[in-house]
Order: sequence, then structure tokens, then C-alpha cells
Amino acid sequence: MIQKLISRIRETGAPVVVGLDPNMKFIPPMLFDDAKQSLERSENTDPFGDDELSVAAEAVWRFNKEIIDSVYDLVPAVKPQIAMYEQFGIAGMKTFWRTVRYCKEKGLIVIGDVKRGDIGSTSEAYARAHLGRVKIGNHDVPAFNEDFATVNPYLGSDGVKPFIDVCKEYDKGIFVLVKTSNPSSGEFQDVLTKDGRPVYELVADIVNEWGADSMDGDYSNVGAVAGATYPEQGRILRKLMPHAYILVPGYGAQGGKAEDLVNFFNEDGLGAIVNSSRGIIAAYTTEKYRKYGQERFAEAARAATRDMIEDIRGALNKS
Amino acid sequence: MIQKLISRIRETGAPVVVGLDPNMKFIPPMLFDDAKQSLERSENTDPFGDDELSVAAEAVWRFNKEIIDSVYDLVPAVKPQIAMYEQFGIAGMKTFWRTVRYCKEKGLIVIGDVKRGDIGSTSEAYARAHLGRVKIGNHDVPAFNEDFATVNPYLGSDGVKPFIDVCKEYDKGIFVLVKTSNPSSGEFQDVLTKDGRPVYELVADIVNEWGADSMDGDYSNVGAVAGATYPEQGRILRKLMPHAYILVPGYGAQGGKAEDLVNFFNEDGLGAIVNSSRGIIAAYTTEKYRKYGQERFAEAARAATRDMIEDIRGALNKS
Repeated sequence: MIQKLISRIRETGAPVVVGLDPNMKFIPPMLFDDAKQSLERSENTDPFGDDELSVAAEAVWRFNKEIIDSVYDLVPAVKPQIAMYEQFGIAGMKTFWRTVRYCKEKGLIVIGDVKRGDIGSTSEAYARAHLGRVKIGNHDVPAFNEDFATVNPYLGSDGVKPFIDVCKEYDKGIFVLVKTSNPSSGEFQDVLTKDGRPVYELVADIVNEWGADSMDGDYSNVGAVAGATYPEQGRILRKLMPHAYILVPGYGAQGGKAEDLVNFFNEDGLGAIVNSSRGIIAAYTTEKYRKYGQERFAEAARAATRDMIEDIRGALNKS
Repeated sequence: MIQKLISRIRETGAPVVVGLDPNMKFIPPMLFDDAKQSLERSENTDPFGDDELSVAAEAVWRFNKEIIDSVYDLVPAVKPQIAMYEQFGIAGMKTFWRTVRYCKEKGLIVIGDVKRGDIGSTSEAYARAHLGRVKIGNHDVPAFNEDFATVNPYLGSDGVKPFIDVCKEYDKGIFVLVKTSNPSSGEFQDVLTKDGRPVYELVADIVNEWGADSMDGDYSNVGAVAGATYPEQGRILRKLMPHAYILVPGYGAQGGKAEDLVNFFNEDGLGAIVNSSRGIIAAYTTEKYRKYGQERFAEAARAATRDMIEDIRGALNKS
């Protein structure tokens, strides 16, 4: 699967992921009105929870669809953040499912930002839910069926290996959280161990081990997450995990700058893919793209995507 | 919320949680047949995924309902493991939702074993999905609405505090993963830091800090998870987090013994609640309860629950 992602990165010339994290604050009110009218017309009431949830989930779906239609030819991949869907219950999960399916129809690679992690058969169930197929009698059936998923390593190999096994079975991939982009990521991840190394470096070592048996060309289907907000750590992690693709959140809205991103790439110009969520999907709410207005939020997202790609290309060419 | 759990523990005399982790291997085939016939009669086809998923999810629902009806008067709480539902896609999430609702109707406290954890508004979305209500326009609406959720601490305070805030708003609680029950939990959790302490002790210290502002009587609404398979660590964690309720997985099928559980309790006889999943819901597949047969799987679960309660009471009385 990582080679499929690399091909798409080469085709688009954009090591960029659009994060589909539709926080309700970003969704233009008109989409709620449209969603409401459409659901009223269909007289579809949802026994699982509340009609309000269905309206919100429908508005999120409409928002996503316009964003996807507007950016799908520019970027190789999208990263829906499942929490933003799960909060709307069953209706929200339907929107997540529709979003994954639609993105794949448009040729996008889908990174499910699910940050799951448990042990043994439970991790296997998550892996089958998001990447593989679940076995039911003599059939095996896909559930959410993303291409990649993010995975939390706190429970150790017992939690991650079932994901790796499912990835091998279905040619999928994972990105393991190593050094996250948030301000408090250091509380546990940066703790210095007895031999003076931070915990995230130990995680990186084990990501390397986990990935060694999942090579797909020069890179492994076991990648890592490392935040753009920590470029020095990124430089170290790049060397510690030479074959891991690094998914880099934290560019833009969270403070990561293009010149810092260079640290996450290998000399072959590959090895990293940079995510922006708010900076793209909520571009119309920022000064720079305000002229588009809320009616043209998807055009603003396209402009912001183009600018981000150019920004990163510029930084990579300079290095 | 922790006082509500404590009251129910006192009423039942059982510091016991039944884990609703319906691995398909445990579900008697007759329930699949019933589910299939029932769905065929209703002519309800599910556009979101596959009918096979709906059959499996319906079988899981029927299995859960019989288990719940059989044990609800014996125990204070249940712990559905969401991965086992998520693997069946939308249909599975409906079964999760129904299970949570039904358990609450039966007076059970529901611990959503979701092990979520992200940052900022994303963690808030998870917290609203599972514990709070999501704000939609002028309304706020519950989604899955468990009473407690398990939370992964790897991302630090940014990931956990939004859960704590939502818990305060809706009188709910969390159990933070500190030392998990699985064999490889030590890979990162036991790493010794520069000052010679394992990482899980640092997590325990911060759980204490997080919990200090969420006291509800003598205990905090911020609890911890520590595995029965590590009783020595349990003894230390009990002292490090005097006000945290400890959710203890790993009893029974995973190898934790009743005499080891004493370490997780305080001198007031409170402070811990012990989970068993397979040992109860799949009791009918074990030698001890085989006489019930698959038709009477729920009766076997009741017998196994009674035996577990007696086992733990015995160990606590001896100590």
C-alpha cells in the first residue's frame, strides 16, 4: 500500500494530505439548512439516536463532498478524523463510511485517523473494522475499509502486531503515533529513560522492528506519526526510522512551518506526507481566503491546498 | 458518577464488571440463524455496508441481550468493548448503541471500553460522543452516552483534559490506561526513567493530578486501568493513586487470580472493580460450565458471574 501512496504523491507532486476533520464551527450554516430540508422531505427518521444528529451528520457529508470534489485532483490522500463523525453517533458513522467510500471512488487514498490500539483479538477487530475484512461464517466483508489507519502504541507489540498482520493480508498500512504534534506530547513521549533517550525514540526503534517485515519497495507499510511542531525531533526520527513513511500533522494552523518540514523527508525527496486540516477545510474563515465567503468554502479550500503544495515544494527545492 | 458506581457495588456486594466483548467465536450459531431469519422477514436491507454485517450485528445484539437479562441483578456494571462492534461497521455500531441503552434501562452502569485519546477539540469530540452531549445549534444531544470511558494517555494532558471537562459537565467518569494487562504492556509502560521509576508510575502521578479536581466523595471521577496480571505493580499503583478507582482487567481467562486482586483494593474495601469478559460470556465453552450447552449460554454466564463474585469476596474477606 505504501507504494500506491508514493505513486500518487509522484503523480500529484504533492506530499500532502487534506484532513477531513469537520468541526461544526467550520460548517457554513446553509449546509445545515439544506440538510434539514432534505431530511424532512425524505421523511426518514432515525431510530438510533436523534434526528438532530442526522441533520448534523448530513451537513457534514455535504461539506465533505464539496471539499473532496474541489481538491481530489490536487492531492494523493485525505485523512478523515473519526472523532468528528463518532460524536454524531450512528448517523455520524454513516457519514464517515460514505466519506471513505466517496474518497476512494475519486481515487484518493484514505488514511483513517482513528488512533485505535488495544490488545490481541480486540486490536484485530479494530484492524478488520478499518483496514481488513471481518470474517462472518464463510464470507469476509469489509466494514469501514480505509487504506491506512493511525495506531496508538501505548499497549506495546500485543496492540500493534494484529494491525500489521491484517495489513499484510489486505495490503494496507498503518502510521504509529511516535511524537505527536500537541503541546503536551512531551509529558510521556519525551520522558528520558535510564540511558538518556526519550521514550519516543524507543517507540521509533520498535516501529523500525515492526516495519522490517512489511517492506513494500524502499518503504514499509508500517509508518509513523511525528508532528511538524517538533522539527528537531523530526530530524532524529527521520534517521532512526529510515524506511518508515512519516505522517506529519501540525503544519499551518498548529504552527508547523514549511522550512521545518524538510527534516521529515529523506534525500530521495520521499518519506513524509504532511497533513493540514483546519488550514484547508476552514480556509474561508481565515483572513487570507475570506474573499471567497462561506458560499465558496470549497473554492477557498482548493486555493489553500494549492498554496500549501507550493509552500512545501518551495521548501523542499531549497533544501 | 463514581459514587453512583460505589453505591451499586455496595448494593450488589460485587466489585465486578461483566465485559461485553462478543467475539464471534463465542456466539452460538443458532443466534446467527435466528438473526438471519428475523432480518429476512423484516425485508430490511442496509445500504451502509453489507447485509452480512447486519446479520452478525443482530446476532451479537441477541447474544448480549440474553447475557444482560441473565446477569443484570448480580453486578453493578458492564463494559462493552467497542472494537467488537466497530468491526461490523454501521450495523455493529447500532448494536453497541442498543447495548448501552439496554444496559442502562436495566440499571447497569456502562463503562465504554473505547480507549480513545487524541488532542484538543478531537478529544472533546470523543468525550461528547461517549460521555457527554454534542452541541448542534441550540440543542445538545447525546450520541452513545456511556457512563464511563477508558482513555489512552500517550498524548498527555491535551488528550485527557477534554474528557475530564466533559465528565464534569455531565457527571461522568474515565479510567485512564496506566498499566495494561497484556504480556507486552511493559515495552513502553515499564521503561525505567532517568530517576529509576517506570513510565507507568509517572502516568499514575499525573492521573492523581488530573483527578484531584474531580473528586466525588472519597474517590475521583478520574480512575485508572491496571491489569490483574501485574499484582505487584497493582500494590504500588494502589498507593500512588489513593483516590482513583482502579478498573482491573485480566482476571480469569488472562490469568489474574482472586488472591492477587486484593492489592488493587483500599482498606475501605473499595477502590477497585474487576472485569471479566470471556470468563463469563463464553463460560459455556469451558470445561467447568460445559453442562449448560450452547442453548443455555446465558445461564452459564450467570453461574460464572456468581462464582467470580464468590471468588473475589472470599479473597477480600481473607485479606
